Amino acid sequence: MNFKEEQEKKVREIEAIISRYLPAEKGLQKTVLAAMNYSVLAGGKRLRPMLMREAYAMFGGSGSEIAPFLAAIEMIHTYSLVHDDLPAMDNDEYRRGRKTTHVIYGEAMAILAGDGLLNLAFETAVQAFALGGNAVQIGRALTLFAQKAGVYGMIGGQCADIEAEDMGSRVTEEQLLFIHAHKTAALIQSALMTGAALAGACEEDLAKLETIGYNIGVAFQIQDDILDVTGTTADLGKSAGSDEKNHKVTYVTLKGLEQAREDQKRLSREAVSVLQSFGNRNLFLEQLVEALITRSH
Amino acid sequence: MNFKEEQEKKVREIEAIISRYLPAEKGLQKTVLAAMNYSVLAGGKRLRPMLMREAYAMFGGSGSEIAPFLAAIEMIHTYSLVHDDLPAMDNDEYRRGRKTTHVIYGEAMAILAGDGLLNLAFETAVQAFALGGNAVQIGRALTLFAQKAGVYGMIGGQCADIEAEDMGSRVTEEQLLFIHAHKTAALIQSALMTGAALAGACEEDLAKLETIGYNIGVAFQIQDDILDVTGTTADLGKSAGSDEKNHKVTYVTLKGLEQAREDQKRLSREAVSVLQSFGNRNLFLEQLVEALITRSH
Repeated sequence: MNFKEEQEKKVREIEAIISRYLPAEKGLQKTVLAAMNYSVLAGGKRLRPMLMREAYAMFGGSGSEIAPFLAAIEMIHTYSLVHDDLPAMDNDEYRRGRKTTHVIYGEAMAILAGDGLLNLAFETAVQAFALGGNAVQIGRALTLFAQKAGVYGMIGGQCADIEAEDMGSRVTEEQLLFIHAHKTAALIQSALMTGAALAGACEEDLAKLETIGYNIGVAFQIQDDILDVTGTTADLGKSAGSDEKNHKVTYVTLKGLEQAREDQKRLSREAVSVLQSFGNRNLFLEQLVEALITRSH
Repeated sequence: MNFKEEQEKKVREIEAIISRYLPAEKGLQKTVLAAMNYSVLAGGKRLRPMLMREAYAMFGGSGSEIAPFLAAIEMIHTYSLVHDDLPAMDNDEYRRGRKTTHVIYGEAMAILAGDGLLNLAFETAVQAFALGGNAVQIGRALTLFAQKAGVYGMIGGQCADIEAEDMGSRVTEEQLLFIHAHKTAALIQSALMTGAALAGACEEDLAKLETIGYNIGVAFQIQDDILDVTGTTADLGKSAGSDEKNHKVTYVTLKGLEQAREDQKRLSREAVSVLQSFGNRNLFLEQLVEALITRSH
């Protein structure tokens, strides 16, 4: 099996696990449950649960207490998209070719569906305690998981991003890196660190994974900025050059294309080399990280 | 000290505990942190943490692991108000005489502040594991706490409430009771059950507390409906008769004033009598429950 086939197989396995934790659409609250399922089942690469599962395996994890966490991180990711798409936020009507949740279910129900998924993520994650894993490791994983999703993680990045939108060209490099590090990298760090913590990884290894997650997230976003300048609309599946048109501050406008390319490569190389430094290597994870940061669209 | 003085003293103690868990307003995400603090510090009776603390004491709890849960339930309650007040939901500009969060901070930041508080509630609650309590009891409390806040608890009630608004006079008794049981009673059940579970209460006692919480929540809402018909605007601090004006289905419009009064009394009596049936009585808690369900405004 080549990498692509292995990845597709793993996506199907993860989707089967996520499905087990989604709510049955019944009861007098069934509309919010349907809106939640609609949002989660919109597809996607299930990147965060996949990274979590690979990190767990890499540190010798083989129990079932990982399963609720895999579903939980996808719920967190999904609720953030649902709220981000709201009219008061990015006001997006389509995502991955499907109508967004508030377009189908209305704004009030989309707010509730996001809240429902965020809460369900924790309801789901705590089920790990009943699955026979090590309670101390589960507690540690839960703490990391909660922190990286919150105001010192992803939500903090959303806040800075909203404020940057009103600042136009006055956005600084510090702000831009803060946004990428929190809005994007925090959940990648969460995936790697939560998975490893559940398998009993030591603090030193968790710190390494935090660096890897930071590098992946920031390199991914810089690549996004580079492709907006160098890619074609057909490659990207969205309008090329849109950042320039919107007078948006990006890593490329701040540092120039050449420096952006250099920094992106440095962050990527560092991520892969730290990953390779572990005694316990996971080749699929290494390939996955390579694919993420060298993508051309 | 009379009941009123004792209650005021306890409110101050609880507010001191909540403050310890609120975020410092710094960093590039400080706006969302300020919006969260603004929302939590709007005041109020701190009823849910107070019920939780009394239930914990009633079952012999005397540790510090209750503290993060007291802050966490107030965060859950507060986020639900912030999101409920949004233009897409109830569109309220004032609450307790202060401008609502979205009026001050804008709609996008209010959505994020709600998300931030919901996530912080769990970040805070999991801190209990580090405070030396019994990990199994904390895990049980956390599970109850998460369930009662979610789609099978409070959020489920919000969903049914939103749908009822579009149904006008076609709202049924089943729907109305579902809304009261979930939107209002679920967090009262959470307070009582989480506090008791943290102190090691048995399943049978938790089931009794679930009944008490249901009765308090539903009796409280029926009393609201009664006062809207019988109270004066001066008593209520809001327009009397507003339900009739808005053609809103209430317990009184469904069952008549006399039956509503009878049912309210029955639910209240039952709540107090189950509470008194515990070997370990808590007189302050009994007085608090009495005050809640016999209020005249």
